[in-house]
Amino acid sequence: MAFDLNSYLSDEQALINAEIDRMLPDSDGISRIVEAMRYSLLADGKRVRPILCIAAFRLVGGKTKDILPVACALEMIHTYSLIHDDLPAMDNDHLRRGKPTCHVMFDEATALLAGDALLTLAFETLSAPTLAVNRTAQWLEVIQTISKAAGFRGMIEGQMRDMHAEGSQLTLDALEVLHHLKTGALIRASVLAGAVVGGGCAEQIKNLEIYAQNLGLAFQITDDILNIEGDPHLMGKAAGTDALRCKNTYPVIMGLDEAKQYARTIIDRALKALENFDNRAQPLREIAQYILTRKR
Amino acid sequence: MAFDLNSYLSDEQALINAEIDRMLPDSDGISRIVEAMRYSLLADGKRVRPILCIAAFRLVGGKTKDILPVACALEMIHTYSLIHDDLPAMDNDHLRRGKPTCHVMFDEATALLAGDALLTLAFETLSAPTLAVNRTAQWLEVIQTISKAAGFRGMIEGQMRDMHAEGSQLTLDALEVLHHLKTGALIRASVLAGAVVGGGCAEQIKNLEIYAQNLGLAFQITDDILNIEGDPHLMGKAAGTDALRCKNTYPVIMGLDEAKQYARTIIDRALKALENFDNRAQPLREIAQYILTRKR
Repeated sequence: MAFDLNSYLSDEQALINAEIDRMLPDSDGISRIVEAMRYSLLADGKRVRPILCIAAFRLVGGKTKDILPVACALEMIHTYSLIHDDLPAMDNDHLRRGKPTCHVMFDEATALLAGDALLTLAFETLSAPTLAVNRTAQWLEVIQTISKAAGFRGMIEGQMRDMHAEGSQLTLDALEVLHHLKTGALIRASVLAGAVVGGGCAEQIKNLEIYAQNLGLAFQITDDILNIEGDPHLMGKAAGTDALRCKNTYPVIMGLDEAKQYARTIIDRALKALENFDNRAQPLREIAQYILTRKR
Repeated sequence: MAFDLNSYLSDEQALINAEIDRMLPDSDGISRIVEAMRYSLLADGKRVRPILCIAAFRLVGGKTKDILPVACALEMIHTYSLIHDDLPAMDNDHLRRGKPTCHVMFDEATALLAGDALLTLAFETLSAPTLAVNRTAQWLEVIQTISKAAGFRGMIEGQMRDMHAEGSQLTLDALEVLHHLKTGALIRASVLAGAVVGGGCAEQIKNLEIYAQNLGLAFQITDDILNIEGDPHLMGKAAGTDALRCKNTYPVIMGLDEAKQYARTIIDRALKALENFDNRAQPLREIAQYILTRKR
């Protein structure tokens, strides 16, 4: 049976969304914080990080549902970073995942606390006592990998550089470092966490790391391209915002056509890192191809 | 030799500050985020949570330095909550620990990210691979305890209720729940984490939990009293701010003298929970007494 990426992605999204919904039950409006957390977390996201995590897990032979809490924790961390990034003190964005941003829907204080709560819940989820009774060392390793990626040497430093780079001209190298930090670090951690929990060997983990780093970069380049050429309705957020903010983007630094070509080169590198895997790598291969043609 | 609480506290503070300094080295201004994290974390705090954690650890027989990362992680979480609480969208405070608040010293975006980074670093610290090689299950339990206390069913829900209660009149019961969430949960987790890592038995842990819950509440009551009677220079923050904000406090709801009497009653309960411990409980006993007379 031919592999159908669209149905694969929507099956995975449904699995992840059901798990998130189970983890953070609707409190019938009793807690405004839970309401705001659910509002942003259950919005129509692509679930890139959890999907990559589960795909890497299965690729190295993982079979149980152990990986689901890790996948959901990654989405919680990603969502918290979006909520805080959208705040007036940061990017002051009003639209996200096709809906008003958290602070517009609720208020700034609630959005701030909902982001804090999602970050905290990620670590509560990753340390749940029902998990991996005999593999606690591995579980600590996953917490370490994810917290490092999300922290001040990873994603947060990337957000800081992104903000301070607005209005000044970056070199291509500096832009690359910025994106490796801002989006690359957590995407890399997602794939690594999946491979570690799945019991991958050192060589598999090394190759998956190369895949993830290139995929993350290509994802960012196409994000920049979509901000110029994309359809705001498909993306669920405004287009053209990078130019308005004089953001450093690949199309600005390289030119639009060169940026598209560069994304293809980077995706080829990602695919090459998978060449020693069998056909269980098909989801990761197809996801890499999809990055180049995505509309959202 | 008689126990001297002042020198005990300052020795412990020095130990904790040295460890924090080691964990988050001065980056010579290379990273503004690290600068802001250090600014708030190394300010002149009382280190209540780490001191309680270490005291509980030693009380149940803990001897190694294993507990220091836990102690520091607790202070990181407490400091992140102060930074975010001080932001304009929340309490909009300008003075903290005797210095301008983080967003006044840096800017709102940096303060927001520095708070996020401290929370994340706490979990990175708690999952460091050098820790407790043979006790990974216990370590996961500590992460679980602390993340639950800091999250949306604990500290964050408390902050939310605190903010929404401003200007409306709470009952004493509702105020008590608010404080059990806002400050009590993390203080309880600090003592529990120390007892768990120290290898305490179930009965010791139960008694320490009762101690912690009462201590946390008494700490909050005396905080409310200090906000009326305290010396801003000794406290390192402004006094009289609760009244200006029409905050629900114990003195407002009960009257000042009754609040003082209530703090004494609560401290007696905390001390009673320690009565089956030997003289290794002296630091915790003296700390409880100190709460009633503290000036900062």
